[in-house]
Amino acid sequence: MQVDLGTVFDATPGVTRDGLERLDERVTTAHERIEQGRRNNEPGYTALNLPDTVDITRIHDAVASFDDPTAILIIGIGGSALGAATLVNALGDDTAPVYVLDNVDPASISRVLESIPLSETVVNVVSRSGTTAETLANFLVVRDAMTEAGVDWTDRTIVTTGTDGNLRQLADSESLPALSVPEGVPGRFSVLSTVGLVVAALQGIALTDLMTGATDAAAELSGSLFETPAYAYGATTYALATRGARTNVMMPYAENLETFAEWFAQLWAESLGKDHRGQTPVRALGATDQHSQLQLYRAGPHNKVITLMRPRHRSPCPIPSTDLDGLSYLSGSDLGSLLDAEFEATEASLVDADIPTIRVEIDAVDAQSLGALLYEFEAACICYGELASVPTFTQPAVEWGKRATRGLLGDDELTETAAVTDKPTLRID
Amino acid sequence: MQVDLGTVFDATPGVTRDGLERLDERVTTAHERIEQGRRNNEPGYTALNLPDTVDITRIHDAVASFDDPTAILIIGIGGSALGAATLVNALGDDTAPVYVLDNVDPASISRVLESIPLSETVVNVVSRSGTTAETLANFLVVRDAMTEAGVDWTDRTIVTTGTDGNLRQLADSESLPALSVPEGVPGRFSVLSTVGLVVAALQGIALTDLMTGATDAAAELSGSLFETPAYAYGATTYALATRGARTNVMMPYAENLETFAEWFAQLWAESLGKDHRGQTPVRALGATDQHSQLQLYRAGPHNKVITLMRPRHRSPCPIPSTDLDGLSYLSGSDLGSLLDAEFEATEASLVDADIPTIRVEIDAVDAQSLGALLYEFEAACICYGELASVPTFTQPAVEWGKRATRGLLGDDELTETAAVTDKPTLRID
Repeated sequence: MQVDLGTVFDATPGVTRDGLERLDERVTTAHERIEQGRRNNEPGYTALNLPDTVDITRIHDAVASFDDPTAILIIGIGGSALGAATLVNALGDDTAPVYVLDNVDPASISRVLESIPLSETVVNVVSRSGTTAETLANFLVVRDAMTEAGVDWTDRTIVTTGTDGNLRQLADSESLPALSVPEGVPGRFSVLSTVGLVVAALQGIALTDLMTGATDAAAELSGSLFETPAYAYGATTYALATRGARTNVMMPYAENLETFAEWFAQLWAESLGKDHRGQTPVRALGATDQHSQLQLYRAGPHNKVITLMRPRHRSPCPIPSTDLDGLSYLSGSDLGSLLDAEFEATEASLVDADIPTIRVEIDAVDAQSLGALLYEFEAACICYGELASVPTFTQPAVEWGKRATRGLLGDDELTETAAVTDKPTLRID
Repeated sequence: MQVDLGTVFDATPGVTRDGLERLDERVTTAHERIEQGRRNNEPGYTALNLPDTVDITRIHDAVASFDDPTAILIIGIGGSALGAATLVNALGDDTAPVYVLDNVDPASISRVLESIPLSETVVNVVSRSGTTAETLANFLVVRDAMTEAGVDWTDRTIVTTGTDGNLRQLADSESLPALSVPEGVPGRFSVLSTVGLVVAALQGIALTDLMTGATDAAAELSGSLFETPAYAYGATTYALATRGARTNVMMPYAENLETFAEWFAQLWAESLGKDHRGQTPVRALGATDQHSQLQLYRAGPHNKVITLMRPRHRSPCPIPSTDLDGLSYLSGSDLGSLLDAEFEATEASLVDADIPTIRVEIDAVDAQSLGALLYEFEAACICYGELASVPTFTQPAVEWGKRATRGLLGDDELTETAAVTDKPTLRID
């Protein structure tokens, strides 16, 4: 990717060129820490080694027995679903549509089960621990629905899980194809592993191109933000956050990067949101959200940085000529040119209002560029985490709620459950 | 809807009970202003009169000629698309799937045009002015594709627009069914008008039930936040914003309210984001985002209020019993019960961390509850705008970018265009 920081110097909040150069000394230290973590395969840092460690052949072999599915069903949640969904949204096609069960809403699961031909569907169930409540509940429902429909679920299921636990035992006892979640790679950093790549392989996405992009990006990491797009992004968003940009809007101008913005939001929120710190990620979409969020971004509080992302190449779609009043400027243009004009106009309109923006460009939404982009945003996030001195790779704050949920469903007597039932109320009807 | 404010008093930021009672005096004044605006049909305020003024019969008549379409295509952007999309996501079914062209991405439009049978598709093109660049560009492309496919587009198109302009003239000259956008109703407040209801009618959604819900909600508006759920929500979020909750997370625990959160985000951002003020709306989804955003919400900066929304009734979906290790607590439960347990557990986990939350409950995701919900959130937003003294119904900050876009496409020599080309750069490759 290419990162353009040109507009952050005169913005409010902004960073001076001097400030960025001073920060670069800390980026050098952060880079050394990251390289050390990679060398020693430390938890988290080892995610940046995936381009070297992932076994593409094994993934292709595991999915080979499922020839020509009509539909693909991902059962996972959070990092166990978002990576694959990001790849499919960006690079997939409609030959075998991908459905994602990443919630436990009875209305949605019924709708999905009614939409897909179960006998021609491949199910990829993904949970490192094999005990994720939502994932296992959905899996039990889907398995049951298959059996009721006379489909042997053991013929249609591929498992991605840890080296032990429920799902691993099930895979062993039922001889299901099973792939291992790599050790030390948190879910939100796992897109370039078995977790993200199984469904990508089922969809025919070129895994080797993805990994080529990631490998090239890995080779580009250096000790200076001025030479490393990933660190330029991570360090600048960190600097802006400390100066008041508590929100980071990720606004790709490409619909097939919409899920990338969701993936980014998890990466950023779960990695950096701790110790009362962090930057709130906001998912947006250009040009659509110009007609929804831009009023706020331009004229609201100066507490944001807006990340504007686009591919340099788009497919053509000419706008037919017209004699409708006031539309001559569109005649003979192209939808992509209009979208690019809106991108540049929106950026300029934010700059005009002193709102900090960062421009991120990739060549095209293709496998190689996307592999690089995902890798670079992971490196950006880790760089931010080093600068902010937060434990980037943990997510302790979600445990409380998981315990309370189990307690409410009658698993145990838990202190968390009492807090739920003792909640104060002031109801307005 | 029912609003529960019980947890905001002990939160950080929080509001004291005394503070809320003092604020209620200002709510009384705000309500009087709103009622005056409604009586005089003033711009914006008149949106709250839609339950009395919208002509359902006329909408049904206009769509009557399109019997049994296979697909429905909305061409609009911002408030011209989000209302209809919200209704369809919540209440629609799959008999005639609805596609929304609310962007100008060549990759997406090609995909949509390949997916739908043009000869059996109804197109609803929506633009008040009849000159919205994205909408008209998409319309020109779709019209051309229909003609190329041998389909008479004039047989398949219904127009929603103002009383004059391009689209009105086109509707007149081609004898297209056409409905008028009501005067004085900004796009983001237009869901309960022709703008939102045409596609809802095409989908067979019960418009009368929607309007019954809205009418009932209108009758509930009173001069006290302690008696009016809409004002309870608007006034409390305003109070929290002034105390540091600069972000408002809208997190429904129902997938069919996901687009409602998008609709809310436009309502909140575009209405209140001005004069360097406003509250940044963040769209989330329970339970999914517990595995993505909850770490930040619970352990990140105390600059948020979390709105947790759910229906009280859900369809059943039993979880099959299992002997898998550690999952006995799920056996014999129901997906909906699990989702509700997660809702309550997440709320309690936020309360435990002193994060302000507001609980919003509706009976069910049905037409009557949704009509009320949409109306009440519009009233909540207007109430917030009155308390914050912002011009709720305008969106001046988006004009700059529109002019720059036209300039870039060669329409005129505009000063905005020069700003685009003069943008400073610092590119990191």
